[in-house]
Amino acid sequence: MAEKLKIIPLGGLDEIGKNITVLEYGKDMIVIDCGVGFPDEEMYGVDLVIPDFAYLTQNAKKLRGLFVTHGHEDHIGSIPYLMQQVNCPIHGTAMTNGLIRLKLEEHRLVDAVKLVTHKPGDVVKAGCFQVEFIHVNHSIADAVAFAVKTPVGTVIFTGDFKIDPTAKEGMIDLARLGQLGSEGVLALMADSTNVERPGYTPSESKVAEGLDRQFKNCDNRIIVTTFASNMYRIQAVLETAQRYGRKVAVTGRSMENMIKVAQELGYLKIKSGTIVELGALKSLPKNKQVIISTGSQGENMSALYRMAFNTHKQVDIVSGDRIIISASAIPGNEKAVSRIINELYRKGADVVYEKSEGLHVSGHACQEELKIIHGLVRPKFFIPLHGEQRMLQIHSKLAQSMGMNPRNIQIAENGSCFELTGKTCKVGAPVTAGKVFVDGTGVGDVGSVVLRDRKHLAQDGMIVVCVNLSAEDGEVITGPDIITRGFIYVKESEELMDELREVALEAIERCRRKRVRDWSAIKSAIKNDLSGYLYKTTKRNPMILPVIMEI
Amino acid sequence: MAEKLKIIPLGGLDEIGKNITVLEYGKDMIVIDCGVGFPDEEMYGVDLVIPDFAYLTQNAKKLRGLFVTHGHEDHIGSIPYLMQQVNCPIHGTAMTNGLIRLKLEEHRLVDAVKLVTHKPGDVVKAGCFQVEFIHVNHSIADAVAFAVKTPVGTVIFTGDFKIDPTAKEGMIDLARLGQLGSEGVLALMADSTNVERPGYTPSESKVAEGLDRQFKNCDNRIIVTTFASNMYRIQAVLETAQRYGRKVAVTGRSMENMIKVAQELGYLKIKSGTIVELGALKSLPKNKQVIISTGSQGENMSALYRMAFNTHKQVDIVSGDRIIISASAIPGNEKAVSRIINELYRKGADVVYEKSEGLHVSGHACQEELKIIHGLVRPKFFIPLHGEQRMLQIHSKLAQSMGMNPRNIQIAENGSCFELTGKTCKVGAPVTAGKVFVDGTGVGDVGSVVLRDRKHLAQDGMIVVCVNLSAEDGEVITGPDIITRGFIYVKESEELMDELREVALEAIERCRRKRVRDWSAIKSAIKNDLSGYLYKTTKRNPMILPVIMEI
Repeated sequence: MAEKLKIIPLGGLDEIGKNITVLEYGKDMIVIDCGVGFPDEEMYGVDLVIPDFAYLTQNAKKLRGLFVTHGHEDHIGSIPYLMQQVNCPIHGTAMTNGLIRLKLEEHRLVDAVKLVTHKPGDVVKAGCFQVEFIHVNHSIADAVAFAVKTPVGTVIFTGDFKIDPTAKEGMIDLARLGQLGSEGVLALMADSTNVERPGYTPSESKVAEGLDRQFKNCDNRIIVTTFASNMYRIQAVLETAQRYGRKVAVTGRSMENMIKVAQELGYLKIKSGTIVELGALKSLPKNKQVIISTGSQGENMSALYRMAFNTHKQVDIVSGDRIIISASAIPGNEKAVSRIINELYRKGADVVYEKSEGLHVSGHACQEELKIIHGLVRPKFFIPLHGEQRMLQIHSKLAQSMGMNPRNIQIAENGSCFELTGKTCKVGAPVTAGKVFVDGTGVGDVGSVVLRDRKHLAQDGMIVVCVNLSAEDGEVITGPDIITRGFIYVKESEELMDELREVALEAIERCRRKRVRDWSAIKSAIKNDLSGYLYKTTKRNPMILPVIMEI
Repeated sequence: MAEKLKIIPLGGLDEIGKNITVLEYGKDMIVIDCGVGFPDEEMYGVDLVIPDFAYLTQNAKKLRGLFVTHGHEDHIGSIPYLMQQVNCPIHGTAMTNGLIRLKLEEHRLVDAVKLVTHKPGDVVKAGCFQVEFIHVNHSIADAVAFAVKTPVGTVIFTGDFKIDPTAKEGMIDLARLGQLGSEGVLALMADSTNVERPGYTPSESKVAEGLDRQFKNCDNRIIVTTFASNMYRIQAVLETAQRYGRKVAVTGRSMENMIKVAQELGYLKIKSGTIVELGALKSLPKNKQVIISTGSQGENMSALYRMAFNTHKQVDIVSGDRIIISASAIPGNEKAVSRIINELYRKGADVVYEKSEGLHVSGHACQEELKIIHGLVRPKFFIPLHGEQRMLQIHSKLAQSMGMNPRNIQIAENGSCFELTGKTCKVGAPVTAGKVFVDGTGVGDVGSVVLRDRKHLAQDGMIVVCVNLSAEDGEVITGPDIITRGFIYVKESEELMDELREVALEAIERCRRKRVRDWSAIKSAIKNDLSGYLYKTTKRNPMILPVIMEI
């Protein structure tokens, strides 16, 4: 039996982020992207969500390379965690590799991993695969799509992209995609992030115009916040500042790091003297000052947050400051962003944050752009990627509206395995895939039980009941002592505390009368009685933790 | 010295919800609205946020009445909690009072409180105040504004409103507002919810057209979810269903309650036979079925949630169901709504949810409508209400753009006290105002300490260290025992548990060697050593709770 090409998305489906896809043929395997996801509000205390790498560690010997489309966290953030478990060369463009290098340095892995830098047009051989880098537009410099020649046909992987005909770095290489389409494409895997939106995503150049409107006739200090990774945006801020004779200072660690990398690699063209230290900026007149800051997502402790809440060491917001939020809130961050905006208004700042002002554009293709890609690539099979279920389904309908047979479209889940010949695409047995939680330095040691407990503790707090029982006859020697945290304000609830002690004591005594000597049974009795009593009197359900010590 | 009119907003400023404002003159006081706020994501385990009523309970003797603009939760939700502490008649329109009555029944207060029902145009005397009910448009039936004649002049209080010239119930009474404006208005207090949005809010009648488009040519079952309180919307669904020969069943407790009240009071006109039981609906052909459901905000356990996640006892979503979400997500609910939509898509449902489809309109006035109100009322003083800081500031700028002197505009905080004569408006000493948390049946017993502990527990869980020490010489008799919850998966971390026991034991022994016999000092030593050790090894910071018992 001939080998089949396996396409296995290990992440990025039914979720936003954590993008990772495997291509496998015989004894060869490549991975495309390796991103992190961000914890949702139920994942108490979790810092990051990374993919389950079981399938990759089991097949480590087959691994011929990791290919990375661009340097956003949801595409590179899990690389250090993967590289702790397997080793293979990483292939990316210069900017992408610059950002990966930062991560590897943080995890002290930079010497252990081979980073190979390529340009659009390059073709990399990895086992039986040939991976071609194709230039695309996106909200980060140096993003690419991949065309992977496999023994059964060409697979195109768009990565995150948009079509920006007036992009400074040049339009996405539609010609090459069209050429590949003419030659015949077996499968297309495309970004679904903006598939709900009709029309086109505006050009990044629109933002430069929006920024100019805000700088023109502004006699005050200007503070701009945006995504630290968007060097096109930063370049536009710098050029606008230069045009109006303003100097620029940068605040916020990630922004400083990104700008440093981009500048070293030549992705940011800065006239000497434009960027100054925050301290030097302050000696200039107000209308000669620009600050570029982190905090566009309302992040706690970001530079903008600290400025708004008076905890920034060098900058205080003063009345009249014009603050430009050149970003939109990622779903889930709306409230945090509002909170900062409110605080800035309270300080008398002039905050510009509406999309209508043309101060932000998305980096992802809307419906009409996606249709162009489908029209050019004309794949035999289509697997929508990057998106929650509704987006995948809408992308499937979009492909159908372009004439695609619904039977040639596969809505995948993380771990789905599609087996392709040159003519067929079948659903194989799924592989292990899932979410692994990172909390502090721990990877995978927080799971569903721990999260369930954290949720319980968060809702109603906890009550510890300590008691010493006689080893001889189960009589109470000391206690029960009741300690609570996150349950109730104890100093004003002494009566309730006394009642709880009584209820616990009665439960223990009842066990003794019934000659119950099994401690877990006594603990259950304490727990049940207390929780029943508490629910009746307070309609609350704190976690109850009986601790029995034997003397 | 002549008396002054005091205007005191106790809630609704720098927040969305919890609206309540006090008017006071000499020995008379009235309250306008008494709403709840909803907990933000930091208020772990809190069910509701109500205003601090201290100022009202201290002045209970002055209280001449509570006047309610409309029946939304953020305007009526705290009434039962206020009525447990003071007593005064409540004045509202029929629909508003119907909803207040439901609340009072739930809290067994219905016999203790006098509910007085009025119509637009009615004028109610309350001490030295005369309160006139003025018809406005909003997303709930029977909403009113108030014009309050006080000894120093007329104060207009818009409540929540929009200008809907094609509303079925008739347009907001602009004529009366204009007449009052011509007679002279001392102060205007107006809704700021939509002040960030340019233009006009579309008419509710646009939604009826949108619904018709969705019903036309649909051969499947239709499920509509919307805010349970919007009877105009429900009426439109019923009429559209009738037009297409469909029967309608209702699911979800709040929706059932609301429809019952609205029907009894004549706010919903239903042809007999249109509404049927869910059971009866099922025997009809698919294209004759409509279900109206709760869940438009993605609420856990709402009817739509249960249908989507297969836990609804009577309805399963099947492929082809058309689900119309006639609502927009309130900030903070976006993810919950997405989650349901994704699940509905997964079941093969056809979900219609985009604003662009004309399936929802706001109930609040946008900028152009607000300008009309300012232009008609032409108040001497203006206090923007209902909104976060940025909205209040933008509303102030809007009033200034209409020619108002910025010195006649007051941006209030909760508890601000404005003292007005016929000619002046001064800022007086603020009164007690704030947030009181409701958790279960407890009102106010959860405060900042409890919430801080809940947050700590939610982030990293907790570790209880139990030890019995000899009363004689502080020697360890039993223990230390280590119990954790929400920290780490213990079964896979036995080594760490052993280490923690060692660290705790060493701390205790060190204290004994130093002859430290103060238990709080021993507890501190255990806590410090463990937390230092944990941070070093895991970068986590669980709550550590040492429990020492003396034998």
